[in-house]
Amino acid sequence: MTARKHLKIGLFGFGTVGRALFELLKTTRPDGVEIKRICVNNINKDRGVSADFTDNPDDIFNDPEINMIVELIDNAEASYGIITRALRQGLPAVSGNKKMLASHLPELIELQTVTGGTLLYDASACGSIPVIRNLEEYYDNDLLISVKGILNGSSNYILTKVFKEHISYDTALRMAQEAGFAESDPSLDVDGWDALSKLVIITVHAFGTYVDPSKIFTFGISSLSEADIRFANEKSRRIKLVGHVEKLADGRICMCVIPQLLSADKYIYGVDDEFNGVVIKGLCYDKQFMFGRGAGGFPTGSAILSDITAGQYNYRYEYKKRQTHAGELPEFTNDVCFRIYYRYNRPEDLNIIDFDSISEKYSSASVNYVVGTTSLKALHDAAPELRKRRVFLAAYPKS
Amino acid sequence: MTARKHLKIGLFGFGTVGRALFELLKTTRPDGVEIKRICVNNINKDRGVSADFTDNPDDIFNDPEINMIVELIDNAEASYGIITRALRQGLPAVSGNKKMLASHLPELIELQTVTGGTLLYDASACGSIPVIRNLEEYYDNDLLISVKGILNGSSNYILTKVFKEHISYDTALRMAQEAGFAESDPSLDVDGWDALSKLVIITVHAFGTYVDPSKIFTFGISSLSEADIRFANEKSRRIKLVGHVEKLADGRICMCVIPQLLSADKYIYGVDDEFNGVVIKGLCYDKQFMFGRGAGGFPTGSAILSDITAGQYNYRYEYKKRQTHAGELPEFTNDVCFRIYYRYNRPEDLNIIDFDSISEKYSSASVNYVVGTTSLKALHDAAPELRKRRVFLAAYPKS
Repeated sequence: MTARKHLKIGLFGFGTVGRALFELLKTTRPDGVEIKRICVNNINKDRGVSADFTDNPDDIFNDPEINMIVELIDNAEASYGIITRALRQGLPAVSGNKKMLASHLPELIELQTVTGGTLLYDASACGSIPVIRNLEEYYDNDLLISVKGILNGSSNYILTKVFKEHISYDTALRMAQEAGFAESDPSLDVDGWDALSKLVIITVHAFGTYVDPSKIFTFGISSLSEADIRFANEKSRRIKLVGHVEKLADGRICMCVIPQLLSADKYIYGVDDEFNGVVIKGLCYDKQFMFGRGAGGFPTGSAILSDITAGQYNYRYEYKKRQTHAGELPEFTNDVCFRIYYRYNRPEDLNIIDFDSISEKYSSASVNYVVGTTSLKALHDAAPELRKRRVFLAAYPKS
Repeated sequence: MTARKHLKIGLFGFGTVGRALFELLKTTRPDGVEIKRICVNNINKDRGVSADFTDNPDDIFNDPEINMIVELIDNAEASYGIITRALRQGLPAVSGNKKMLASHLPELIELQTVTGGTLLYDASACGSIPVIRNLEEYYDNDLLISVKGILNGSSNYILTKVFKEHISYDTALRMAQEAGFAESDPSLDVDGWDALSKLVIITVHAFGTYVDPSKIFTFGISSLSEADIRFANEKSRRIKLVGHVEKLADGRICMCVIPQLLSADKYIYGVDDEFNGVVIKGLCYDKQFMFGRGAGGFPTGSAILSDITAGQYNYRYEYKKRQTHAGELPEFTNDVCFRIYYRYNRPEDLNIIDFDSISEKYSSASVNYVVGTTSLKALHDAAPELRKRRVFLAAYPKS
């Protein structure tokens, strides 16, 4: 049996998750894990806890006793600096910064290979659901077909309030912020950017391929209107914000973050509140569904703590799909057609999207919508305009 | 990155799962995994596949090229012989034999420590759901409270047919057998023995404690009657066969396999057909739910293949809870009270169970039942009589 390492942690950041981690360590007292020093921006703020704070990263990086870096800050650039410095110094590191990871994964994987360093970040995708480690450890051999899920707890909380409790979008957003589920910039949640980062990370572990986030069509729920809610209700569907990666018949993969009109027989239809849910589909085992809390300090702190204790056993991601299929990793494509619901304001808004065909068209004094077939490529091309004009769209599968 | 080992497998058994594994390897062609030789009882049977069969275990154990043993046979004693021989020879082994594992885990863990050998058996609990590896890898630090689930696909398939499609119990059992979900001895499925083995294995990885199966109250669905189904329907509940381990407030753990009358708000209420579903509850992350195919050749074969490829990377269970809490592992107890529904045939059958209190009592010409509070200890004491008299009982929580 592998010996359990004694860890003295240098922690960066003491926000919701950092504080939750601190409290968790006090409560659970795992063997051989302690936070030695915490680096924060403002050392003078009274945080009401007894710990060794500093505002100088060198105090952590130059402390010979510190043998793990845990980084829980909001700023993606600063996060990148901390993590690369840790890896170059050969210090195992844990990060919760999805945006940083989604932007820099290929270099960070390369850096781990070169330095022999270790970077763990299971907490970064879906909080307490161990998606990455599962894809890494368990779906290695299977003919994986797709990973699809509700990846952002905050927007899901809002949609649940809107659809199940008939609360207005704005009130629901405020409630999510008050409950501590929302990112400091709500656009990260409601416009799909947070889900996009997670999807990019998940895809690296699911299929090996890294796709630059800017190539992936991403559309959120911030322009959701009463008309859209009415449309969904009339069709007995609910709107959920879904991140999706799928292997096509030709071996390429497509990806998107998009609201979907889901029927009640879908697993993720029932994933409510701030929960996340992921459906993993393979050729051999059909579907698997994992479900758990995806937002909030303690669920995320708990996932961070799992990364830390995994580090005690020298656990590391092997990036198996990248190893196995190196040189022949699935290519990314936006060349996929599907049916959408598109609600717009002025007649000319209809021209933003290049539709292959339109099967339904509705106009009234207050609302216009069409149901039609288009491609991810057309949507990606139209994305900046779509966001500007406050229109709304959702994938609308036939069943 | 760890190098991927080239594996030449000696396979024991070529039943439903063995054959599925063989087919899967042909389809997925994972790097560096091949079946070198297959040991079966009857070498003369025409299996319609081209492979190197033998009926002599020595042909496998004495082959210097074979560097992994995969054991997929029905017979628990023979399985034990194969696995211990493999470990003593220093050969990594994969087993799917739940009954053998549930009976011998402590020695097999000890043997791994002594010989440095590796035994993997994720496929043994819940087929394609990676429960063991998750408990092992991910729930190390958390204050785990309980693991509860539908652990047997065949009995769940039967209950689904009975409750959702109003098919008779006997017909549903025959359908399960025809679909290849049932164990060769159906009593293993419908009387809860298969779920019991899985529960024992899960508990070792969840809490570190090994409990001898004979100490655990186990009751199945084979005496389910129309009256019981009617009772459940009247209360808007469904009966599911549930395996359950829970840490009590005093730190001890209780375990049982028992039919439960579940209300629709429970996660596992919606786990239908041959699917398995497991709810893991912790202090920090509330509940997590995992769901997937738990029976059938391909889902199980796929889980076996995951164990095999994990072996390529020298993955091994660390038995972290047993390490961490050695000497102070949670004790097992049957000293827990709860409410049950108990349906019996003759008035004297009521006396078999020592009830603390009875809150409802119903008698008619055709059926008698009570709702009352009793303990796991009382039920365990009464178990042999209960089985003999074809009565039925189910846990009946207030909500």
